[in-house]
Amino acid sequence: MLGLMSDQPLLISSLIEHADRYHGKTEIVCRLSNGNIERTNYNSTHKRSKKLAKALLKKGVKKGDVIATMAWSHTRHYELYYGISGLGAVCHTINPRLFSEQISFIINDAKDKILFIDIEFLSIVESLYDQLTSLESIIILCQNSEMPKSNIINNLLCYEDLLEEQDSSFNWPIFDERTASSLCYTSGTTGNPKGVLYTHRSTIIHSLAAAAPDLFSLSAKEVVMPIAPMFHANAWGIPYVATMVGAKLVLPGRLLDGKNIHDLIVRENVSFTAAVPSVWLSLFEYLELSKNKLEPLKRCVVGGSACPRSMMEEFYYKYDVIVIHAWGMTETSPLGTVNVQLPKHLNNNKKEKFNLATKQGRPMYGIELRITDDKKHILPHNGESFGDLWVKGPWVCSGYINITNSETHSKDGWFLTGDVATIDEDGFMHITDRSKDVIKSGGEWISSIEIENIAVGYEKISEAAVIGVKHKKWAERPLLIIVKALETEVTKEEIIAYMNNKISKWWMPDDIIFIDELPHTATGKIRKKELRDKYINYLL
Amino acid sequence: MLGLMSDQPLLISSLIEHADRYHGKTEIVCRLSNGNIERTNYNSTHKRSKKLAKALLKKGVKKGDVIATMAWSHTRHYELYYGISGLGAVCHTINPRLFSEQISFIINDAKDKILFIDIEFLSIVESLYDQLTSLESIIILCQNSEMPKSNIINNLLCYEDLLEEQDSSFNWPIFDERTASSLCYTSGTTGNPKGVLYTHRSTIIHSLAAAAPDLFSLSAKEVVMPIAPMFHANAWGIPYVATMVGAKLVLPGRLLDGKNIHDLIVRENVSFTAAVPSVWLSLFEYLELSKNKLEPLKRCVVGGSACPRSMMEEFYYKYDVIVIHAWGMTETSPLGTVNVQLPKHLNNNKKEKFNLATKQGRPMYGIELRITDDKKHILPHNGESFGDLWVKGPWVCSGYINITNSETHSKDGWFLTGDVATIDEDGFMHITDRSKDVIKSGGEWISSIEIENIAVGYEKISEAAVIGVKHKKWAERPLLIIVKALETEVTKEEIIAYMNNKISKWWMPDDIIFIDELPHTATGKIRKKELRDKYINYLL
Repeated sequence: MLGLMSDQPLLISSLIEHADRYHGKTEIVCRLSNGNIERTNYNSTHKRSKKLAKALLKKGVKKGDVIATMAWSHTRHYELYYGISGLGAVCHTINPRLFSEQISFIINDAKDKILFIDIEFLSIVESLYDQLTSLESIIILCQNSEMPKSNIINNLLCYEDLLEEQDSSFNWPIFDERTASSLCYTSGTTGNPKGVLYTHRSTIIHSLAAAAPDLFSLSAKEVVMPIAPMFHANAWGIPYVATMVGAKLVLPGRLLDGKNIHDLIVRENVSFTAAVPSVWLSLFEYLELSKNKLEPLKRCVVGGSACPRSMMEEFYYKYDVIVIHAWGMTETSPLGTVNVQLPKHLNNNKKEKFNLATKQGRPMYGIELRITDDKKHILPHNGESFGDLWVKGPWVCSGYINITNSETHSKDGWFLTGDVATIDEDGFMHITDRSKDVIKSGGEWISSIEIENIAVGYEKISEAAVIGVKHKKWAERPLLIIVKALETEVTKEEIIAYMNNKISKWWMPDDIIFIDELPHTATGKIRKKELRDKYINYLL
Repeated sequence: MLGLMSDQPLLISSLIEHADRYHGKTEIVCRLSNGNIERTNYNSTHKRSKKLAKALLKKGVKKGDVIATMAWSHTRHYELYYGISGLGAVCHTINPRLFSEQISFIINDAKDKILFIDIEFLSIVESLYDQLTSLESIIILCQNSEMPKSNIINNLLCYEDLLEEQDSSFNWPIFDERTASSLCYTSGTTGNPKGVLYTHRSTIIHSLAAAAPDLFSLSAKEVVMPIAPMFHANAWGIPYVATMVGAKLVLPGRLLDGKNIHDLIVRENVSFTAAVPSVWLSLFEYLELSKNKLEPLKRCVVGGSACPRSMMEEFYYKYDVIVIHAWGMTETSPLGTVNVQLPKHLNNNKKEKFNLATKQGRPMYGIELRITDDKKHILPHNGESFGDLWVKGPWVCSGYINITNSETHSKDGWFLTGDVATIDEDGFMHITDRSKDVIKSGGEWISSIEIENIAVGYEKISEAAVIGVKHKKWAERPLLIIVKALETEVTKEEIIAYMNNKISKWWMPDDIIFIDELPHTATGKIRKKELRDKYINYLL
């Protein structure tokens, strides 16, 4: 028997409609690439999103068409989020930092019909323009007076001209909430990027969950600045959550250096922000040099990669900011776990608190986690067993676009993350490695990351990579590859002595190699595959 | 184009599964009718809910069957919420305070198959037993040793016996999230009660929304005690939200007097609670007499009827508790609006803050409000125009059970609340009257409630009712009916003089009648219809 409750679909357009209706004068602020601050509000932005939607309709855009963006975090990009998805089309956010062959691959794979770009990305698009098979037009996110010329692309269009032709009288269409709303490709260290196709439903449920006190804890009283770019899992969903709760939204644009980030926090009274650890390193350097503080900032979410304990301590002791450690993936919208401590931890001392805070956190309602061993047997949640991490929930993807049999998606809804983790009795999850990097020594698993973390704790080591290489007896054994700190000398014996009581004996690397530089990906990760290919037979 | 995100349905069973998995040791505490405290946790309660589900299956319960409860707020009732709904059956919570003809009407109307009752309600059920047409069995919520005997009902069953026969190995079934989950009848002052049939979907979305910082702001750190009974719109949804966030849950049972409520707050460290104003009046009386405080309590939601300003001030100044004024109905799950102030109000002085706090609050994301005049034209949101209040949203009912053409439900999803209200530019809604009580004088509306509130502000008046009665020239005019305070004398002239500059001239009642007692409903509302029937021609 069905119940008798309203059956209205959960649509992304309802977020901005709500903000317009009940938080219309609340500001949206962004920094443009030229450093200027642009200031508007939910009333005007909703109007402009509707104009955009009408312009797209006029250009022949239909439900299900994929419309791409290559842009920093700014108000026009925000308008695209709502204008495109609100229409039932798919907003495909492209990461401009990908290699150009990856960019042309994903534009063609997604069958992007229109591409909106910031002026500064024109040369990237020009360089790969002849490889693009589906694109019908390219629209530059600027005023008419700023329009660039191109010798390669005819007929570039101007965003503001397009909007100017429209009025804002428009009713958002109503459709199935499982309709695709946005698309984001995830790029691993190998293979082609894979497209995650979000739905209106997943976006709204994720936003409702994310606002809760044990997650982002967002209300109309906060000033929210996502530093995670709008092409990284929709800036971690924050442009949706902020709109849902009617918070002031600050979009930092292209200039993510310490000085500009600090300036925005202070000038706009930012109370909540979210970014990867590397952004904070650069902010801390600036604050140290300029002797500045972070007064308005209360909380910041750190995700994307593990937040070092030292960073949490610096935030807390020097700047009075609480770090919320979180874990997620493009495939999980992205929230998977958030580290907010439980009542039982209230009496923990500072050391215990920071120890716990280095874990990636607990799953919120909606998310289920499990870990499995080599044979896909489920492992206990005791904080010690570590295995392949799986995740399930209403905002976890069920597949990738154009890939029919994804090996990482099970039929019963579980997604294999590619991380290796422990889970404790309260559900606190701790990532110990990537599945492809874990070393399988005689059937037991060794975490490459844990050994690396210990190695780089030694002052004479600048960077370290641990890889599994072939071994006659144990199948695989760890090999430590290090880059020495500048102007120091260090021996194998010294390093082994340093690590001696810090890891189990059987985790100790069989050998140590010194090299000048480790190979990195475009996003700064170590290319372990390259190292493995090179050193795989080193111990044989 | 559909997206590629997990399509898993939002089911009530997932709430308790989550709490069991990640907050298993968090307590659920209740006070039994004998005054004893019973203490358990999410682990055990989930197990018992599963045993209950198995027992129901064994008794032949099928998806869509309606299983009723007549019980106070306690852990067994909580188990019924999950055990019944989790199975795909409908948990019908009956208000034992209704008149017995209303109770037999709703049991028959809902086709209740099984009825679970607290021992103390046996005599009620016995008294109407011969009128019940659908009921197959009655189960008493007690231990075997406590089982009562009945001369009227054969074969009473014992709840704990039923559970004891089962083990807890059980997987909750997966089904359409629009399946009916629970049923609650709403009783007006006239006509038969009307059944609101909630869905799994509406319950989960309502719970996700309710946890947010600008609503209940609930996290695993709170200790939550709903005083609103579990037969009033599912205790305002709190047993679901608390479970979702893993908060400690305190269920106060039958004893809702000031002493027992105070004792639970202090003993169990209750930080958040929710109740109608009358509960607080009795708590304040007790605190005044016993010179006690409310230390652990931080916030309380007041709804059900308007929260007097004096009550908010007392909470704030004497007990350091923040009142969250809220409005909702059985038809809205129940959250419609919550009064949490905006950043622009932060600099308001105390007087302005309390003025604003007397409004019923703003709609959260999901809820839309509108007000209309006599001709159903939409009125502006300016804080002054008042009209019939409509509400719309994913947790608003689309009809009543067994009523095919509900006059209060529009085809496009709007529900006519029966309240008359203003809405200001920020969406703050203020209820000024019930639609049926508003006085339509020469085409203009006069709020009966506002005049009553002013009248009872006069110390010589104990209670007041204002009704619209027939008038030759203006069609209707207000008539004020009052009950004098004990041992005082008061004249019409004195009352008119008191009210003189407090209301518009044309709002002044045409006459005042003194009576000894006003007629009330079972739930304490004034029966204005009875007064209107009696005095309708008084001014002719």
